[in-house]
Amino acid sequence: MTQYIYAFREGGKDMKELLGGKGANLSEMTSLGLPVPPGFVISTETCAYFLHKDDYPEGFFNDVLAHLADVEKELGMKFGDANNPLLVSVRSGAAVSMPGMMDTILNLGLNDETVEGLKEKTGNERFCYDAYRRFVNMFGNVVMGISHENFELEMDKLKEEKGVKLDTELDAADLKELVSRFKAVVKEKAGRDFPHDPSEQLELAIRAVFESWNNERAKTYRRINDITGLKGTAVNVQAMVFGNMGDTSGTGVAFTRNPSTGEKEFYGEFLLNAQGEDVVAGIRTPRKLEELKEVLPEVFAELEAVREKLEKHYKDMQDIEFTIQERKLFMLQTRTGKRTAKAAVNIAVDMVDEGLIRRDEALLRIDATSLNQLLHPDLDPDAPKNVIAKGLPASPGAACGKVVFTANDAADWKFNRDEKVILVRKETSPEDIHGMHAAVGILTSTGGMTSHAAVVARGMGKCCVAGCSDLSVDVVNKVFRVGNVEVREGDFITLNGSTGEVMIGEVPMVEPELTDNFQKILDWSNEVKRLHVRVNADTPEDALVGKEFGAEGIGLCRTEHMFFDEDRIKAVRKMILSTSLEERRNALETILPMQQKDFEGLFKAMDGMPVTIRLLDPPLHEFLPQKPEMVQQLADEMGMEVAKLERVIDNLHEVNPMLGHRGSRLGLTNPEIYEMQVKAIIQAAILVSKEGVKVIPEIELPFITNIDELKAGRAAVEAVIAEYGESVTFEYKIGTMIELPRACLTADELAEYADFFSFGTNDLTQATWGISRDDAGKFMNFYLENGILERDPSSSIDQKGVGFLMERCIELGKGAKSDIEIGICGEQGGEPDSVVFCDKIGLDYISLSPYRVPIARVAAAQAALKNRK
Amino acid sequence: MTQYIYAFREGGKDMKELLGGKGANLSEMTSLGLPVPPGFVISTETCAYFLHKDDYPEGFFNDVLAHLADVEKELGMKFGDANNPLLVSVRSGAAVSMPGMMDTILNLGLNDETVEGLKEKTGNERFCYDAYRRFVNMFGNVVMGISHENFELEMDKLKEEKGVKLDTELDAADLKELVSRFKAVVKEKAGRDFPHDPSEQLELAIRAVFESWNNERAKTYRRINDITGLKGTAVNVQAMVFGNMGDTSGTGVAFTRNPSTGEKEFYGEFLLNAQGEDVVAGIRTPRKLEELKEVLPEVFAELEAVREKLEKHYKDMQDIEFTIQERKLFMLQTRTGKRTAKAAVNIAVDMVDEGLIRRDEALLRIDATSLNQLLHPDLDPDAPKNVIAKGLPASPGAACGKVVFTANDAADWKFNRDEKVILVRKETSPEDIHGMHAAVGILTSTGGMTSHAAVVARGMGKCCVAGCSDLSVDVVNKVFRVGNVEVREGDFITLNGSTGEVMIGEVPMVEPELTDNFQKILDWSNEVKRLHVRVNADTPEDALVGKEFGAEGIGLCRTEHMFFDEDRIKAVRKMILSTSLEERRNALETILPMQQKDFEGLFKAMDGMPVTIRLLDPPLHEFLPQKPEMVQQLADEMGMEVAKLERVIDNLHEVNPMLGHRGSRLGLTNPEIYEMQVKAIIQAAILVSKEGVKVIPEIELPFITNIDELKAGRAAVEAVIAEYGESVTFEYKIGTMIELPRACLTADELAEYADFFSFGTNDLTQATWGISRDDAGKFMNFYLENGILERDPSSSIDQKGVGFLMERCIELGKGAKSDIEIGICGEQGGEPDSVVFCDKIGLDYISLSPYRVPIARVAAAQAALKNRK
Repeated sequence: MTQYIYAFREGGKDMKELLGGKGANLSEMTSLGLPVPPGFVISTETCAYFLHKDDYPEGFFNDVLAHLADVEKELGMKFGDANNPLLVSVRSGAAVSMPGMMDTILNLGLNDETVEGLKEKTGNERFCYDAYRRFVNMFGNVVMGISHENFELEMDKLKEEKGVKLDTELDAADLKELVSRFKAVVKEKAGRDFPHDPSEQLELAIRAVFESWNNERAKTYRRINDITGLKGTAVNVQAMVFGNMGDTSGTGVAFTRNPSTGEKEFYGEFLLNAQGEDVVAGIRTPRKLEELKEVLPEVFAELEAVREKLEKHYKDMQDIEFTIQERKLFMLQTRTGKRTAKAAVNIAVDMVDEGLIRRDEALLRIDATSLNQLLHPDLDPDAPKNVIAKGLPASPGAACGKVVFTANDAADWKFNRDEKVILVRKETSPEDIHGMHAAVGILTSTGGMTSHAAVVARGMGKCCVAGCSDLSVDVVNKVFRVGNVEVREGDFITLNGSTGEVMIGEVPMVEPELTDNFQKILDWSNEVKRLHVRVNADTPEDALVGKEFGAEGIGLCRTEHMFFDEDRIKAVRKMILSTSLEERRNALETILPMQQKDFEGLFKAMDGMPVTIRLLDPPLHEFLPQKPEMVQQLADEMGMEVAKLERVIDNLHEVNPMLGHRGSRLGLTNPEIYEMQVKAIIQAAILVSKEGVKVIPEIELPFITNIDELKAGRAAVEAVIAEYGESVTFEYKIGTMIELPRACLTADELAEYADFFSFGTNDLTQATWGISRDDAGKFMNFYLENGILERDPSSSIDQKGVGFLMERCIELGKGAKSDIEIGICGEQGGEPDSVVFCDKIGLDYISLSPYRVPIARVAAAQAALKNRK
Repeated sequence: MTQYIYAFREGGKDMKELLGGKGANLSEMTSLGLPVPPGFVISTETCAYFLHKDDYPEGFFNDVLAHLADVEKELGMKFGDANNPLLVSVRSGAAVSMPGMMDTILNLGLNDETVEGLKEKTGNERFCYDAYRRFVNMFGNVVMGISHENFELEMDKLKEEKGVKLDTELDAADLKELVSRFKAVVKEKAGRDFPHDPSEQLELAIRAVFESWNNERAKTYRRINDITGLKGTAVNVQAMVFGNMGDTSGTGVAFTRNPSTGEKEFYGEFLLNAQGEDVVAGIRTPRKLEELKEVLPEVFAELEAVREKLEKHYKDMQDIEFTIQERKLFMLQTRTGKRTAKAAVNIAVDMVDEGLIRRDEALLRIDATSLNQLLHPDLDPDAPKNVIAKGLPASPGAACGKVVFTANDAADWKFNRDEKVILVRKETSPEDIHGMHAAVGILTSTGGMTSHAAVVARGMGKCCVAGCSDLSVDVVNKVFRVGNVEVREGDFITLNGSTGEVMIGEVPMVEPELTDNFQKILDWSNEVKRLHVRVNADTPEDALVGKEFGAEGIGLCRTEHMFFDEDRIKAVRKMILSTSLEERRNALETILPMQQKDFEGLFKAMDGMPVTIRLLDPPLHEFLPQKPEMVQQLADEMGMEVAKLERVIDNLHEVNPMLGHRGSRLGLTNPEIYEMQVKAIIQAAILVSKEGVKVIPEIELPFITNIDELKAGRAAVEAVIAEYGESVTFEYKIGTMIELPRACLTADELAEYADFFSFGTNDLTQATWGISRDDAGKFMNFYLENGILERDPSSSIDQKGVGFLMERCIELGKGAKSDIEIGICGEQGGEPDSVVFCDKIGLDYISLSPYRVPIARVAAAQAALKNRK
């Protein structure tokens, strides 16, 4: 038979699924011999049963009463007894903390008789009727669905009658009067009497807590916080203790270490003569925990002992709640404390030093994603913020600057006026690159986590909020609007790229630090991780940042980004507009030395490490202007008729450029482009080799779908390299991006002509899902908000779809060529769940933008630890 | 040890792979006891060896000489003998016929000595020197690489010297002189003497034939005709017989039945006193085969007997070559004769009637694709044609009309001037639909087999040539250019949608016929096929055409096509431009009765058969104009500011609409649209049900990628249907298109909420390959021409990529719900190889445009027969 109810002594901390977090930890503390008021837990399975059948299991409530009898016995009190009444709290508690989302009822068991018994026992009439009126109010609200205002109205009326201002000024008789008025409210609003029978109260309360699992608030919370797979809430029924029985009573919350810095100090607050809700409500200002030492030294000492016991036992920083009833300490809750990234790092390292945990345990304690906070300037957490909109947290960090609306303005304000600017666009395009470089942050109204703005910003390590769909951007009038708020060019705004928030004005910043403890975590990560971590870098600067953060090579250099520099884009455009092969070659000749210089820089920066260079990927039209005035300007520059230029642009136009004439398709139809790029790579490699640098070029063909395409592409690359004969003294590899489903499904064939594969999961996800990163904004938010998707597939590897294709690719690829090197260079490769997946399926490396390298190292270590289990 | 050489008596017709078609059939005829000049075949494997190693296998040539010795023995002649010389022919012959692509040498073995021996033997000096000079010419050209003109020049010079005009006017002495002049040409051009030794001649000739396998001509032919997987060519060495030894000699070609009509008549041509090449060369006009009966009655009788024997043996119409040497008949070739679709149908049915073959054999004899010829008007095969360009054969049939360049002009010319027009566009868009309706044919310069123009044209059963990239279309000046040719508005052109040819002027047409024999083939197909065949139909007219051709239901009704009619597009646009939900609903209300009428028509047309209706699929911007003048016009119509309308259009704009806000994504974010469509379907079904029509609606949700999306979509549909309560007296299904890789990979989940799946392989192919149908033209031709792809993946199901996904989908889908109905509605489903695949993987039905239904039935029958084997 299913056990639906567990006495605290029967449970333990590993039973969270069944008993909820609160129940499991109350049980654990009971087993530890800590002073926990006795009680029992009704399991989450009971909740599931109840929600499914809309009724309790057979015999369930008798079982409740039996457990209650055990509590009565332990305390020598009786539930509903007129002389020595037991009161209980009824609290929700799911496996995952959902603070404030579900219901709680205190002081249950009070009625007109038991309140008198309590009065006899405590000798404190005011306390008793205060408890009683609180109970009627809470029960009336939670169980009987009567809104709070009804009770508040009666309270206000009574205070007016009595001519007092504060609740505390009401005396016992007033509160007794209030109880009867509250009961009248119940009768009027609920159409029935307030239940007098404590058993009935309990039965109704448990029912109400179960039902609160599916209230709108709770459902929303679970969706937003990505909480799935839970059965329901447990219900904790526990004897009441009272912190409001005078000045030797009190209540408090504490962390066993400082949750903000990680320092080893007992950190908390308390109130004397108060109940738990008073600390949370913020009506009275709580006192610092240290002061308890002065006020109630024995209790404080006891609490210190509890703290020590808990840390030793849980081996982690705890967040505790306690109540003191007439100098007696009661523990009401313990749970793992939430902490900042900084605290997480420091606590983890300290606890290793203290011998409490091992290094691998320390590594698993850290939320890798949160390390972002330590790598980017962040908003001062204490500063006031005026948030006007929220978009997607596309590239982490914070930025503050003056609003500009065009890339040219951004460059102008930055370089000629030395202003910090934030570039605001509907969406960005390659034409905006120089403006993005100039800006401290980027804000777009459309596009998703892998839109152009997001990808480029992450590559630059620059803060970006994308797809902020509440924004209406009016470039012509240089203004954007959110609701009634208008923000004009030159106005200050602040972005939080880690949360997606957009704020009016200047919010103060705190600077990042790569502390010794952080460095230790990174070192430990390297000891454990199996995956290599590389950096996505298009410039020597990015490469060096990545290397400093511990990158073991470049996993992706996007050569097209090098084409957008002002001095190059002209030559590129000349090349595109050439009407003869010769003209085209001449234009390419002028680009060659520039690209060669880029590669020299990269090779030098990564001395001794592999450098994966992807040949040109985007379609040619991305290099040509679209706007009439820009077309006119280019025509003038080129000495070309506008009409003719328009024809060229029109001919290059594509309906779906993502699926068009790009990547190796372009490389094969216009072989002179890749020829120039391969020359630049090889010449650079020869040159710096001579200077003693060890080069390991990995030449990558993008957007391959079939064996003959790769064969032809590889042959073309090899033909160019062959021209350099004996000068090529270094090893090199030729491989391909895997970014289309068909590449995955024919990986056995592709392996024949590839020394390495690199998953481009951005494009692979787009193709697998049929979702264009640039257009997803139009429905993705709706999908996420309405639970049609749990997660944007661009944010984390979709294991069932994209992941299946990856696994098949690896199986086929390694099956055909066991030593083929396989990595991932899509930004998903840095998301911790995805890293676990990448580790599990046997990838050789992950590659990410420079500022994500440290996170990836930690995530890779965690992945290794998790998959090793 | 590998056997490299096979005497004719050792081979047989089933050894084509090894002996080539010619060698296999010469062997077979030898075994049948037909009069075949003796000889042997050098296998295709030898060719593969030679091409790989650039040398013969060890001992190979001795083996050749040994086989030659057998021939000598059989004939009592000797190769190279001065008295009784054996001459041989050396002919190429691959497993698949490649007429004229590779090399042939006749009369080999002649030299200054053997020619004299031949003279003694035949007593015909002129014949001997004629043979000799032909040999030197042919050998010099084929083996020694000297161009024909050099020999022709000498011939012309000699004729001038002799004062004669025709070759035949030269006498024996002249020809002898010519031989020595030809030899001088060889010496001069090749830098060496003409080889005198017959063995050397033979060795060089075999080598030359092998090498001809990889000449440009042959490679191109194989690529164009999709011939892959062959080892190389076989070489046939065979004793020469001569048709040019006077008036009792001759040569001819014949078909055992009429290859154009299929009539059972001996159909062929011959020439007396001639060699085979003379018939082909067309210098002399050949005589009809009947006349041979008069001239050489015994030979004709013998030939008749051969004909009968061959048909009985091969059980198929044969294409034969014969030579008569001094009243003796020799068979030089037999092979299955090529035939028109009409002939194929008639021969297949006749042969069943004659008891030669079974019905299943008859079905497999027919090239299903060629049946197109019987279903569309076709060009008169005998009419002269001036082909100026070739595009993709996008929609079969032929059309002839005056060129127009805009959809409006097309409609104007057709409806106001009653002209037949051909609409010429760079590419078509939904805005052109009315023009496409008005035109008899469509020609585009970009886009592939599944571009908008191609898909819509096939749906309309209208001729279309797409992606004709040689065309430069100048809409402004209403002219298109191909090279130097200019075609202006109003000029006549003719299109052949089955070949992709574009011709200047009016080419006469022949009308299609659905003959009794064709009907028989279709009936037989139904007896065998497992796959059901449905029709893709958006209108009752299309539905009826499909039904007449044997469709068993509608597999795809694209409701959006119904939105483009002139009276509806306004309401649709009003709906899109609505600023409130109420306005939007009102606009939809006006569309509802129109859609309902459509569905009533479809249900009535398909009484008792399933009708799959896909809810709106394309993104909304497809319904709005893009061109400024059209935008202005719409703004006027709507009473809207142009700037505001432009903003709406701009907001709806998508970078990659193929991967954007379309299909169920649109249906979920704008639920009122599907709501209206489902209402229209259900109301129509209720109405016609009452009239006694049996309706089986299948409501289809497009572009689904995940379970929650389908769940939400299905719930919305069901909610609408529930409103009609008891009135819904008919069964209905709700299912989904499978058109994205992720849908395939999560089919087990999707099956939970789908009663049926329908593969949209157009979109599935696009996503799997990352190829946009609208942009593929930019590289696809290059890929096909350069052998980077064997086949455009949009033309036939790519089994390794797309096919894998389909198989996995079926496995997962049927695994989760064994009775789920799965079909395919992409046009690939009508391509015979794809049909075989669809049958094999267990699809329930294929669905195609009306005019492809009969083809699909035959293909489905063939698929069943092939897969049953």
